[in-house]
Amino acid sequence: MAESGGGGPALRRRTLFVGAAGLAGLGVGVKAVTAHASDEAPTHGRDVVEFYGDHQAGVTTPPPAHVNYVGLDLVSSGGERDMQAALAGVLQVWTEDAARLTAGDPALADSEPDLARLPARLTVTVGLGPGAFTGTGLENRRPRWLHPLPRYVIDRLDQRRWGQTDVLLQICADDPITIAHATRVLTANVAGRVRLRWVQRGFRNARGTQDESVTMRNLMGQVDGTVNLGPADHDSLVWDDGAEQPWFAGGTSMVLRRIAMNLDTWQELDPRDQELSVGRRIADGAPLSGGTEHDDPDFEAVVDGLPAIPASSHIARARRRSEVERFLRRGYNYDDPPEPDAAGNVPTSNSGLLFAAFQRDVDAQYAPVQARLAEHDALNRWTTPIGSAVYAILPGARRGEVLGAGLVR
Amino acid sequence: MAESGGGGPALRRRTLFVGAAGLAGLGVGVKAVTAHASDEAPTHGRDVVEFYGDHQAGVTTPPPAHVNYVGLDLVSSGGERDMQAALAGVLQVWTEDAARLTAGDPALADSEPDLARLPARLTVTVGLGPGAFTGTGLENRRPRWLHPLPRYVIDRLDQRRWGQTDVLLQICADDPITIAHATRVLTANVAGRVRLRWVQRGFRNARGTQDESVTMRNLMGQVDGTVNLGPADHDSLVWDDGAEQPWFAGGTSMVLRRIAMNLDTWQELDPRDQELSVGRRIADGAPLSGGTEHDDPDFEAVVDGLPAIPASSHIARARRRSEVERFLRRGYNYDDPPEPDAAGNVPTSNSGLLFAAFQRDVDAQYAPVQARLAEHDALNRWTTPIGSAVYAILPGARRGEVLGAGLVR
Repeated sequence: MAESGGGGPALRRRTLFVGAAGLAGLGVGVKAVTAHASDEAPTHGRDVVEFYGDHQAGVTTPPPAHVNYVGLDLVSSGGERDMQAALAGVLQVWTEDAARLTAGDPALADSEPDLARLPARLTVTVGLGPGAFTGTGLENRRPRWLHPLPRYVIDRLDQRRWGQTDVLLQICADDPITIAHATRVLTANVAGRVRLRWVQRGFRNARGTQDESVTMRNLMGQVDGTVNLGPADHDSLVWDDGAEQPWFAGGTSMVLRRIAMNLDTWQELDPRDQELSVGRRIADGAPLSGGTEHDDPDFEAVVDGLPAIPASSHIARARRRSEVERFLRRGYNYDDPPEPDAAGNVPTSNSGLLFAAFQRDVDAQYAPVQARLAEHDALNRWTTPIGSAVYAILPGARRGEVLGAGLVR
Repeated sequence: MAESGGGGPALRRRTLFVGAAGLAGLGVGVKAVTAHASDEAPTHGRDVVEFYGDHQAGVTTPPPAHVNYVGLDLVSSGGERDMQAALAGVLQVWTEDAARLTAGDPALADSEPDLARLPARLTVTVGLGPGAFTGTGLENRRPRWLHPLPRYVIDRLDQRRWGQTDVLLQICADDPITIAHATRVLTANVAGRVRLRWVQRGFRNARGTQDESVTMRNLMGQVDGTVNLGPADHDSLVWDDGAEQPWFAGGTSMVLRRIAMNLDTWQELDPRDQELSVGRRIADGAPLSGGTEHDDPDFEAVVDGLPAIPASSHIARARRRSEVERFLRRGYNYDDPPEPDAAGNVPTSNSGLLFAAFQRDVDAQYAPVQARLAEHDALNRWTTPIGSAVYAILPGARRGEVLGAGLVR
């Protein structure tokens, strides 16, 4: 399957916008809309990421500054047939609305159409949880790996608050007003068929604050996401080839983990001990064995008789034991307003990481790494997974098609 | 008092950065740091707003994309003398840390120094609530207008969650990671002396998505903030002249109202009825009497025998009845993750406006307008004030000075 997406030439109007470092190398569909831009200074509010294609946008496309992960459950309104019809209806509305919103046009029933004019690289990515298959009579079409992750000893999951849902919207854009509006429209227009469970808001550096090739830092101050898949690996490690479930060709899986950080105890740690916990220098992300950020760590290196990178460090535990243990990371920071407890006490922070991993097969690629980290990772002392969910990210839709058309009819 | 701020020429290194529309007219201290930028593409992450001056930044300086309003209470640890010493200690730490962070340098005790490198127009603005005066033996230095607003019939205030606090930090920047880090550092470094009560997160359009001269829209889709003070009015209507409290010369007041929006019922409204409620066209913000956004509304205009702008509309009720009823609006949208209620039901949205108004005298300038709007405003059907607080925004500090040095010693 071609990385550049499907459809005829007419569907491939993919003018890369000027100055977006590194995009050309990713081969993804990003173009600038010029229709309304004649009287504007050079700004990026009207930059558009193509919605249609073999794959949904929002996976291998460059991550914009903001995300809302929106978890919703199907409203049970009858038998499997009714539920499947409800799911089909939701997917139809989302396809139509997402195609319009990502292009900078108001949704069909858009009560605030003027908030739709700045797509700012908006992407809308739709995923299905196990419940979308079991409740709808589609069990035999469920990808094999679409089931809850094993329970890890490190987990302190608040399933009610941040747990698995039947469907997922991942809404990304560089402008927070765009995100708020798209979230509102996409959830309001399917009210009655789905019920909102949670919204998880995340962010990276704002667009334009620094060169886009710089790796994000998380709120513990660590360079986060250095080891990641490149475009050459997407077909083999991210996109499903339809061998098991033909309808799913072009889809992928997403693991979403909400990982709380204890910044109070982390900041008590000496900077050197912080680095030994991670296995990388804090200042520049270089492995403690030397070199620069993107150099391979040398896990055999010894300094003063001790391993330069401790065996218990995060990168030593996370490193792949085989070629298949690799996945695409696309995480965001979160920093929500702290909520008072029953006694009225307000914690000092409500911060962490929305860890999102995309891979063809959760069981083969993601689970072994997660199991190893759960067993031991020096960082576990300061991080606590409080949410966890797995989704089947639907194949992309070509123009005129509806997302999930191969699944529900 | 000069609008351009005080200090000798050495303190006025205020190179306006290129392309920031409208800034020159504001005469505010914005400059670009070039020290670390030699190997960077043109980005705005290192843009700096000057911390020192006769006035604090964050009032008349252009609003960056993101804000955290942080409300804290002084921890009662003894008599008035101890409390005043605690307040003085907090102000000293905040002055030192804010001066460094806004310049792109780590705070003195900064556990994540690498998160401080992109100030992105960071401003830190410190305010005092009534409790900072009454508990500290400083009652006779309290500005006359620093007291709770009257209770309005429209208010449904959650005082525990969003109410008045002893002290306030307003933290603004174009980058959400900068905001998260500054919030963390500034609150962690005074733990023990103050207790966090709430964080209110807000946003406007991301920097660079459109021309900065475009007025923000709120999440109801309305152009929000058209009628506002210009630089010529700042000395007379924003900045205190010290006539009543000499120590307060150069300060101002801030009213912060958290106004929830009911987007469900708002979106049921016909677009024309939405416009009649506001008194402006939704599409371009022009008054319903005609013209363009910044034209004066004609409240006498009649169309088909009816007033073009209904007397009950928001702009008709909000318009000043005298020259003194004017203030500086600097609001932000909010869109927090909806929180489940006791039964586990999640509302469709948790959105609204963080309405911030700055003025020399709350009682004379702000209160009459608010009273009129509370009495009647067509928009009240869809908006509910759920938080309210008033602060004395301290005068600015000159280099080497501590914020509030004229108040606490």
